[in-house]
Amino acid sequence: MNFRIRSTDGETRRGVLETGRGTINTPAFMPVGTIGTVKAMSPDELKEIGAEIILGNTYHLYLRPGTDVISTLGGLHKFMSWDRPILTDSGGFQVFSLAALRKIEEEGVHFRSHIDGSPHFIGPAEAMKIQGILGSDIAMTFDECISYPADYDYAARSVELTTSWARKCREYQNPGQALFGIVQGGMYKDLRKKSAEDLISIGFDGYAIGGVSVGEPKEEMHEIISFGAPLLPKDRPRYLMGIGDLGDMLKAVDAGFDMFDCVMPTRNARNGTLFTSTGRISIKREEFKYDAGPLDPNCSCHACRNYSRGYLRHLFLSREILSMRLNTIHNLYFYLDFFRQMRQAIEEGGFSRFKETWEQILS
Amino acid sequence: MNFRIRSTDGETRRGVLETGRGTINTPAFMPVGTIGTVKAMSPDELKEIGAEIILGNTYHLYLRPGTDVISTLGGLHKFMSWDRPILTDSGGFQVFSLAALRKIEEEGVHFRSHIDGSPHFIGPAEAMKIQGILGSDIAMTFDECISYPADYDYAARSVELTTSWARKCREYQNPGQALFGIVQGGMYKDLRKKSAEDLISIGFDGYAIGGVSVGEPKEEMHEIISFGAPLLPKDRPRYLMGIGDLGDMLKAVDAGFDMFDCVMPTRNARNGTLFTSTGRISIKREEFKYDAGPLDPNCSCHACRNYSRGYLRHLFLSREILSMRLNTIHNLYFYLDFFRQMRQAIEEGGFSRFKETWEQILS
Repeated sequence: MNFRIRSTDGETRRGVLETGRGTINTPAFMPVGTIGTVKAMSPDELKEIGAEIILGNTYHLYLRPGTDVISTLGGLHKFMSWDRPILTDSGGFQVFSLAALRKIEEEGVHFRSHIDGSPHFIGPAEAMKIQGILGSDIAMTFDECISYPADYDYAARSVELTTSWARKCREYQNPGQALFGIVQGGMYKDLRKKSAEDLISIGFDGYAIGGVSVGEPKEEMHEIISFGAPLLPKDRPRYLMGIGDLGDMLKAVDAGFDMFDCVMPTRNARNGTLFTSTGRISIKREEFKYDAGPLDPNCSCHACRNYSRGYLRHLFLSREILSMRLNTIHNLYFYLDFFRQMRQAIEEGGFSRFKETWEQILS
Repeated sequence: MNFRIRSTDGETRRGVLETGRGTINTPAFMPVGTIGTVKAMSPDELKEIGAEIILGNTYHLYLRPGTDVISTLGGLHKFMSWDRPILTDSGGFQVFSLAALRKIEEEGVHFRSHIDGSPHFIGPAEAMKIQGILGSDIAMTFDECISYPADYDYAARSVELTTSWARKCREYQNPGQALFGIVQGGMYKDLRKKSAEDLISIGFDGYAIGGVSVGEPKEEMHEIISFGAPLLPKDRPRYLMGIGDLGDMLKAVDAGFDMFDCVMPTRNARNGTLFTSTGRISIKREEFKYDAGPLDPNCSCHACRNYSRGYLRHLFLSREILSMRLNTIHNLYFYLDFFRQMRQAIEEGGFSRFKETWEQILS
């Protein structure tokens, strides 16, 4: 993996991340392919809208279909017929947000599956082994993602644990697979700083900020975002995990983050909430019933080129599968196009204006 | 509309139906696009797998989104972004199978919507008006589809009614839209004969047999199929409504039918039942868990070219939207390919062998 910054605009960076499976232009948005498919999309469609990398969830894939299946069927890329880069998370976030009856030990976490209650154990060694089998291009360290609010002492001990797990992940790093470390520390700046320093001393191919958007007020999140970015090495990709609100991502890119993932565009699509150049709309609204115009006249996606708002509303109200397909195509296209425009703005030294324009639209 | 028979093989016919929107090679299978979309498919995908015509359901479209919406949005073709031929049924079948509180009068049927219980009235005039607004290439007459079993007197009176409605539909036929008459008569051959003669004396662009597969034993259905075909003019397309079982369709093509529609391939796809060159399979079966092979090695569809049985099983068990998409692509491709092969067999005088081979596979 090779990362180079092509241009900067203040703290904001326009970079290129080269992997064996293809190039990722940053700032980059990674559609989430939870369980071996970006919901409602085919790999061809993802390519058509310009997705350069997608995310896979280690926790979900480990539980279903299981690593034995993915291993037998040739790894995650072959399994899901996607030949561009994949980043896998470590499972940490889901173990701490979805699984039940967790018991944390020095070596990892005992938990029960949210699907069938079966008992499992994942620690740094297991997380690296699973990600090795999945064969992702970028793996993440196994971390404890603490809840909000967390008291200082708990957060401090958790950073110690996350650091020791990160060190083990680094030891077990799979050949040919990049590994990013994840900074934790809750809302405590000194702990964030310590976590970042710990990880940098171990040394990773890239660095992420985790444990944000876990229930804290927006202001606190923005504090951690702008405080967190400069803690990370300038010459490595910086990934802000799980943040997909357009306004939040603008702030994060402003602070110097390069990579993002979020289920927001895909999940909202399935719920009928669509992003447009003039703001969000709910496609089910009565006013669209007879509307012959495209969802967004400024959008060139397949849905906007071929269908009317009236038809999209009808499909949504009728709970048709094509509704989820077209809405997802549109929202993901919108997100990827938003990032294309953002990259261009950075290259042209116009990121501040881009950010202002969008903050006005979103307000 | 122009229909010509290119070759015959016994009673079996290989024809070409020309419409203003494109050519339909017969025997033809028409995927069902109930409510303005063939479930899980995009129009591009339908074209890619070779669909030359699809069916739209007048009853469903009338209730949702409603003719006012489809009229405002430019007719059904434009509404759903499909520029090839569409055949619409008349609503008769659904009024008699789905709607509640029916009251039949000389002029038509009062019924309540199966969606919200709202009261409606459809008769021959309304059915033709709705189909005119939908703008289908082929419309069907409004008929009474009686249940099974039905006593002789009821069936006889029903044929009278269906004939009088057919006459009205013919009077109200929309310019530029072909109109097919529907033969009814339950399981009574003399009534079937009378119904066919009535319709032929009125004169239609094509003729259909309706009211089969309504609960009768297979043997009775096959009786009506082979008895019904020769009642219909040789020089017009013959459409067997709602029959999609492969074995039944082989019998019907053998008897001289040209057109078919059925939800079987699409509905089965969503339930995980898939058609292959060696018979049906249920994709959820444990034996496919680690299966790296394609669904059907003899199939060239997108799903078989790109994905393993193991992956398709995983998608199905995870209830992913892509599962319904890929399964539907496969089943419809299978059906359309089955008809392609059948047409070739007819041209080459080998339909009997084709039929035997498939009856063996299906048994």
